[in-house]
Amino acid sequence: MALAQPIRGIRDEVAALKRARILAAAVELFYENGYANTTLDAVAERLGVTKPFIYSHFSSKSEILAVICSRGIGSSLEAIDSILPLDISATEKLATISRRFVTAVLETQMYIAILFREEKNLAVTDFRIINDMRRDFDRKLTVLVREGAATGEFHVTDPHMTALAIGGMVSWAYVWYREKGRLPLADVADQMTKLILAMVQAKDTVQAE
Amino acid sequence: MALAQPIRGIRDEVAALKRARILAAAVELFYENGYANTTLDAVAERLGVTKPFIYSHFSSKSEILAVICSRGIGSSLEAIDSILPLDISATEKLATISRRFVTAVLETQMYIAILFREEKNLAVTDFRIINDMRRDFDRKLTVLVREGAATGEFHVTDPHMTALAIGGMVSWAYVWYREKGRLPLADVADQMTKLILAMVQAKDTVQAE
Repeated sequence: MALAQPIRGIRDEVAALKRARILAAAVELFYENGYANTTLDAVAERLGVTKPFIYSHFSSKSEILAVICSRGIGSSLEAIDSILPLDISATEKLATISRRFVTAVLETQMYIAILFREEKNLAVTDFRIINDMRRDFDRKLTVLVREGAATGEFHVTDPHMTALAIGGMVSWAYVWYREKGRLPLADVADQMTKLILAMVQAKDTVQAE
Repeated sequence: MALAQPIRGIRDEVAALKRARILAAAVELFYENGYANTTLDAVAERLGVTKPFIYSHFSSKSEILAVICSRGIGSSLEAIDSILPLDISATEKLATISRRFVTAVLETQMYIAILFREEKNLAVTDFRIINDMRRDFDRKLTVLVREGAATGEFHVTDPHMTALAIGGMVSWAYVWYREKGRLPLADVADQMTKLILAMVQAKDTVQAE
């Protein structure tokens, strides 16, 4: 599975754009018709390009599936990796990560649905990579919950279970969130963040009520 | 989709047992090989019975899928329906429902995995029934959260979002729970219940810390 590369020049930008377009078309088709029922010809047709065009950006349909399936957890990991080392309180870290995590999930809603439906179709190595990413995320979130418990900011009895509960309530949002629903994405992120801070009994939250 | 019937005599008990055995074999095969790749012949073979035996209990493979997919949400709905009318505090109701909801999810882990993978293979009417059950559950949980907020037991700003968050953190447990993992099922249920009560800022929880 090819991971995201830093973009350098126009050439790279164009390549990134083309990859993004291919992925977007594949996501639509995998989501609508399933992975097994979607050919690369159908992806090419939807884009109005040829199959060799696709092969110049992805080695196989299986690679496209792996990139799609890793998108949601990849964005969530980026969020936690960039926030964890900051010199701010555990409460601020958790609030920022929660907001970005919810946003990442809601923005990759179809990608996550495809991951759950098609994980059996992933190549074994890709499946392992994605599972390792998930475990990495849970581990880092557990570290943060433990940090907040150590500073006395959070009150939890089982940091690991708490991290799994946070991961679950946010990830599950791909099931019920509707883009044109009652609340815009930013409000959902705010509300979920509040609920997460309440769950760890972060001091400010409880006092604020 | 045939819903669960009250069991009356030995005859009914035997029929229920046979249906349960067929479902258990189908769950294993759908989980291992996928719905599309599993024939009723394979289910019959795993059980050491004939295909007509299966047809005397289920009208089709599609009916079996529907019963499997509705199992988790069905148990969760039973829990909430039996607890909601009781004359106990909203906090006690939420604690009891949470414990039973977690137990239902963890006991039907494979059933839920199949629902997520195969929902596209459900007959349209079955898909609608299951979605309605989910919505019914979310609605009833929202009513309970609102009840607790009205009595001053809970502190939440958005009861509906809170219900969705509770539903998510519990349902997601099917992803990470391992039967031989660190904590036995009852302890997971206890921890999750604690986290849920903290999330709604139920008075006792916060004071107890």
